[in-house]
Amino acid sequence: MLDVALAEAKLGLSEGGIPIGAALFDRDGMILGRGRNRRVQENDPSIHGETDAFRRAGRQRSYRDKTIVTTLAPCWYCSGLVRQFGIGRVIVGESVNLRGGIDWLRGSGFEVVDLASNECIEMLSSWIRDNPGLWAEDIGEGRE
Amino acid sequence: MLDVALAEAKLGLSEGGIPIGAALFDRDGMILGRGRNRRVQENDPSIHGETDAFRRAGRQRSYRDKTIVTTLAPCWYCSGLVRQFGIGRVIVGESVNLRGGIDWLRGSGFEVVDLASNECIEMLSSWIRDNPGLWAEDIGEGRE
Repeated sequence: MLDVALAEAKLGLSEGGIPIGAALFDRDGMILGRGRNRRVQENDPSIHGETDAFRRAGRQRSYRDKTIVTTLAPCWYCSGLVRQFGIGRVIVGESVNLRGGIDWLRGSGFEVVDLASNECIEMLSSWIRDNPGLWAEDIGEGRE
Repeated sequence: MLDVALAEAKLGLSEGGIPIGAALFDRDGMILGRGRNRRVQENDPSIHGETDAFRRAGRQRSYRDKTIVTTLAPCWYCSGLVRQFGIGRVIVGESVNLRGGIDWLRGSGFEVVDLASNECIEMLSSWIRDNPGLWAEDIGEGRE
């Protein structure tokens, strides 16, 4: 499942965007929605990988039996999405470049699996080295 | 400023949508973006009042000097948005119909002003009485 999120992240990178991807799966492992950070491409700060995948999956009655997979641990915004909608399981490619809200989610009873993928870590860390200003903007640490 | 959010909520109601509105203001009180819940109108579960206003404001370098005003206390998803992007001040019309993450935000050092507006309380509570299923879906409490 991480491969789908990784493919989205790489697609984002090829578009000149921030390389973070995600996908939402149903209980049978079928893809409901896949997406990527599109802050740069769409000039839209609300599109993180997770919110994009969530949106593209359309309206669902419940998320208890769903799994969201993302190349990077969800930030507070995306962790809040998981908590509010009660997404049953979260699988993250890595949590080295951003720890986000995964401890908070675990403390609230959510299942979070951290795959510690070297490919995910390397892809994003090298991008951050080259784009520190854009990265700061994306996680709300930009300067006025 | 609440009037802008209320006007958005009423517009949403007139469109057959969930009546919650929001707006983002700069330090001088100028509107950067205004929006409303458009789950029904756009068939998009990611558009809450706050995320719509945030999105329509476009990319900002920093949110420290910004104020978000919403007719209803932000849910976890929207509280996560506030926390991740460090929006300086949150003004809510009411927190009776949903308490959301306002205590969590206050505990994290955010300024949250609750106006306890009867108009906001009545508008949403009467809508929830008439639309319990849609409301449950919007706050992630729908049944499978």
